Amino acid sequence: MIDGTIARDAPRGRVWLVGAGPGDPELLTLRAHRILTSARIVAYDELVGPEILALAPAGAERIAVGRRRGTCPNAPSIHPAVLERALAGLDVVRLKGGDPMIFGRGGEEAAELAALRVPFEIVPGISAALGAASRAGIPLTHRDASSSVTFATAHLRGQEGAGATVESLARRVPPEGTVVLYMGISTLRETARRLVEDGRSPRTPACVVSRATLPDERVVVADLATIADAVARAELPTPALVIVGGVVARRVASPAEAVLGAPLREARGA
Amino acid sequence: MIDGTIARDAPRGRVWLVGAGPGDPELLTLRAHRILTSARIVAYDELVGPEILALAPAGAERIAVGRRRGTCPNAPSIHPAVLERALAGLDVVRLKGGDPMIFGRGGEEAAELAALRVPFEIVPGISAALGAASRAGIPLTHRDASSSVTFATAHLRGQEGAGATVESLARRVPPEGTVVLYMGISTLRETARRLVEDGRSPRTPACVVSRATLPDERVVVADLATIADAVARAELPTPALVIVGGVVARRVASPAEAVLGAPLREARGA
Repeated sequence: MIDGTIARDAPRGRVWLVGAGPGDPELLTLRAHRILTSARIVAYDELVGPEILALAPAGAERIAVGRRRGTCPNAPSIHPAVLERALAGLDVVRLKGGDPMIFGRGGEEAAELAALRVPFEIVPGISAALGAASRAGIPLTHRDASSSVTFATAHLRGQEGAGATVESLARRVPPEGTVVLYMGISTLRETARRLVEDGRSPRTPACVVSRATLPDERVVVADLATIADAVARAELPTPALVIVGGVVARRVASPAEAVLGAPLREARGA
Repeated sequence: MIDGTIARDAPRGRVWLVGAGPGDPELLTLRAHRILTSARIVAYDELVGPEILALAPAGAERIAVGRRRGTCPNAPSIHPAVLERALAGLDVVRLKGGDPMIFGRGGEEAAELAALRVPFEIVPGISAALGAASRAGIPLTHRDASSSVTFATAHLRGQEGAGATVESLARRVPPEGTVVLYMGISTLRETARRLVEDGRSPRTPACVVSRATLPDERVVVADLATIADAVARAELPTPALVIVGGVVARRVASPAEAVLGAPLREARGA
């Protein structure tokens, strides 16, 4: 045990569990930006893009930790390289795609840090669904269409099989309201079928947003009956999320999107 | 009709629908901050605090629009003062508490702007639940405890009565997984009772986070059977949200929170 080899009162480093948002560096929070730009050690996963990582000081140590979230359900939560440095008295910024507390294992990592008496702070981030909603113009709730939104994933420890996913979906997703499936592309055909079996119309609007908020963001709109085929045809790259519900039909686009986006974008380098 | 009095090709101003996050100004995104600090006209609702509003240039026009979201279910979405200026060719920043697309009417306002050919951009924000989760140390999902989280509100157009709220809750909230109730304090006793009737144990952990991410944030933890009484005793100020589910029992606190928070906080004025 790591804990047994460290004196109870040895000085700990501090760990910041920081949400890096959905992809666009401009969607970092001020606090995340401030922490990242003053970091000496940054541990990041594959959901954090190079443009964001480049904001860390040139001399900072960069540590790639693990694979994309959700792919390794039985792996320990905090990476040994992060823990090692914190127990040696070094401060570490652990940068996570999206928000640490929504499919980000922030709670698990924080609990492990607390057990070893490592001080930490959790910094929220724009979760992928929020980034996708704003950029794609799809409200997640709507006064006339939906008064709830459920974020769900097909993955749960001990339920890696697709069968288990399908079985448990109805207990985790309500019959009405907006549904957002994170990491839902690989099981999309089954989940769409199950949502229909559970009472939603096959005509329920559904869409997939691929690489939300990044320059190559793509949106495919269909309905529950046809979304799996539409996505297969489009060959969308990950990360991608699925939005299901009447709100998809209320998608709205700015009348002059290009004109609007440009001026503030250009200001980025100023 | 406003549209009838404006030439089809009159130059429109642009409108930014900007999420201001849960309260702490450091939880603005870089993009929201950039837009706000260069604004000439800022329209804001009561969920946006004075510290955030102070980031707009000293000479900017500030317009207080409407009441807190959810209190006026039949009011038009976009405020006439915003529309008037946009149709007169002026750029407006519409600052909204939380995220524009989650109980923020961002979709409704965007649709009204599009119908009048007003260019707009929607900028996501940290929704209150995300801010509360990180600051209070409560994961919204957890590998061992919950693979979904539902954000719901008691309010829906045409269903203002508490009875309608209780009736419809089961169709909008699944029997398992984390539930976050926005604006849920006034109906807490009924919703807690209904969640138990719908199959959740009265011992299900539940908490209320009041004024999440602000200096006077408070958290009250109980269970579904006792949360309404606990909150009544605590006399919590709004805004407040309710978190229900096994994740509440996994709340984690940093071993040295004060030490950790201080250095970066102090850097704010530097």
